[in-house]
Amino acid sequence: MNKLGKQTIKFDAPPTIVQTASIVGPKEAQGPMAKYFDQCLDDEFWGEKTWEKAESKIIKETVNMAVSKSGIASNDIDFCFAGDLLNQCISSSFGLRELNIPFFGVFGACSTFVESMCLGSVFIESGAAKNVLCATSSHFCSAEKQFRFPLELGNQRPPTSQWTVTGSGAAILSATGQGPYITHITPGKIVDMGIKDANNMGAAMAPAAFDTLITHFEDTGRKPSYYDAIVTGDLGYVGKDILSDLAKTKGYNISSNYNDCGVLIFDKLKQDTHSGGSGCACCGTVFSGYFYKQLQEKKINKILLIATGALMNSTSSQQGESIPGIAHAIAIEN
Amino acid sequence: MNKLGKQTIKFDAPPTIVQTASIVGPKEAQGPMAKYFDQCLDDEFWGEKTWEKAESKIIKETVNMAVSKSGIASNDIDFCFAGDLLNQCISSSFGLRELNIPFFGVFGACSTFVESMCLGSVFIESGAAKNVLCATSSHFCSAEKQFRFPLELGNQRPPTSQWTVTGSGAAILSATGQGPYITHITPGKIVDMGIKDANNMGAAMAPAAFDTLITHFEDTGRKPSYYDAIVTGDLGYVGKDILSDLAKTKGYNISSNYNDCGVLIFDKLKQDTHSGGSGCACCGTVFSGYFYKQLQEKKINKILLIATGALMNSTSSQQGESIPGIAHAIAIEN
Repeated sequence: MNKLGKQTIKFDAPPTIVQTASIVGPKEAQGPMAKYFDQCLDDEFWGEKTWEKAESKIIKETVNMAVSKSGIASNDIDFCFAGDLLNQCISSSFGLRELNIPFFGVFGACSTFVESMCLGSVFIESGAAKNVLCATSSHFCSAEKQFRFPLELGNQRPPTSQWTVTGSGAAILSATGQGPYITHITPGKIVDMGIKDANNMGAAMAPAAFDTLITHFEDTGRKPSYYDAIVTGDLGYVGKDILSDLAKTKGYNISSNYNDCGVLIFDKLKQDTHSGGSGCACCGTVFSGYFYKQLQEKKINKILLIATGALMNSTSSQQGESIPGIAHAIAIEN
Repeated sequence: MNKLGKQTIKFDAPPTIVQTASIVGPKEAQGPMAKYFDQCLDDEFWGEKTWEKAESKIIKETVNMAVSKSGIASNDIDFCFAGDLLNQCISSSFGLRELNIPFFGVFGACSTFVESMCLGSVFIESGAAKNVLCATSSHFCSAEKQFRFPLELGNQRPPTSQWTVTGSGAAILSATGQGPYITHITPGKIVDMGIKDANNMGAAMAPAAFDTLITHFEDTGRKPSYYDAIVTGDLGYVGKDILSDLAKTKGYNISSNYNDCGVLIFDKLKQDTHSGGSGCACCGTVFSGYFYKQLQEKKINKILLIATGALMNSTSSQQGESIPGIAHAIAIEN
């Protein structure tokens, strides 16, 4: 592999994404992406007693589904890279504790899915692994309870707020396969522009997405038009507009081929989700469900996927801190 | 690099640990390891208003110290791998937000330091990076408040309980250097033997350490006597005894060269720390402070470092869950 420019790695023998899987909750099942997901749940509990246990079950079953669909024996998977939004990433560690695959816990907030694919693809290309598993999850109820207010309070949500996606996305990367290939990764820096409003994550994360996007273009020499689709993870409507505007200030016009998973997953008018979807599973399910199939069917052939994360917790907000953002990008090509 | 056996990677051009740094709190400053740390603090706040902000300052200053001591310009460091125990790893993300180095957030609970070195060394050996930074932190006050009870309650601690180390350890790995080298990594699986007592982390984590230890020996063909020191991260007195006993059941006697950072960092009789130290910084500071210098001075030449983590949070314990453990091992040799 070669390092390009400041922070991009180009793979000589790019890993293939051999399979993905996605399971989502009932609200996502009513959204415009529903038909692309492997499984839609009827309720937020899925037979479990708590939301946290439900989230663990969702990531567990999504991972099992990805392994099963791939046809790769689970003991041929060398490493698992996974993480989630719950304190100490318990959704992943409890959900995947029976997996019996060496496990790297990853925390990138909502950027976790692409962070895990960045790490996994370096392991594949280097020969450290033949097959790796990358997974993440989020759950509206467990996230609201932890980051904001008890759901029972019925707090009003401001227009900039986003709706945490209930679901899980998983991908299996392999040294051998016919693509789609991860050709480049551009891991991001932490960027904090001083946004303090925990109900406006799009604004907090957009500067990090901007930094990674521009760095990717500068490092690779590519222009926005190179890609059939440039897709961010969960900037939502507010953050998407900010990123488009910021990109223009550097001379990059992404208006014709840019979209955001948080914008795509819900119907803004019918579903009352304000600025759109968020959560680790937003990018995880929309990529695994929708974009991966578009790549497989060659409806698109080149995608730049940029997952964004807000690296804060409720204590940091209570202590008056701003919200640091991060964004990791991968180029996926047929 | 080559995969050995089930889950060990052997490096052909092993990365050098070119420098480490460690900063600890006032209790650690009164313990038997004090003289090996780079800096000992007088109080738990270090001029900050909250424990969380103090912990962020500790990791920030430790990382700055490691970079400064190494003589490597910070813009020659390609990636940073870091994580901690606070919810959503805010110590790392706030402490390192001004670092301006592409950042991979890692969560392995108290195994984070070695997990980050596993990831970093694969990045180095593969050519994805020339220099990487690995760091972690923990803080007694922020951890107690988050995982157990408000400190003001003055709860009595059972004999199996451990004392979270206040401090931070950081290491810089490089493709070039004269050693000590990371020659092998054995990333661990999640192991859950059903322990539910959140005041007995040693017992919860020892089975994971056992699994990784035995796997390392089987994968490499090495015996305990190959190493000058076999060192676990924070099993404490209780977990250390369990691991020694478990190892014997598989025919491996580690009694003569095995120790634990949680046993080493505090004076059991004088410091009232019961089963010993714990926390990400336990392994992080004792390795960075003590063992790294022992390796540099060639007082020891071969060490197997196994950091252990308990992948739980307070919600999982309240919901009646057991405590999954994990252990990651690295072999470091002159």
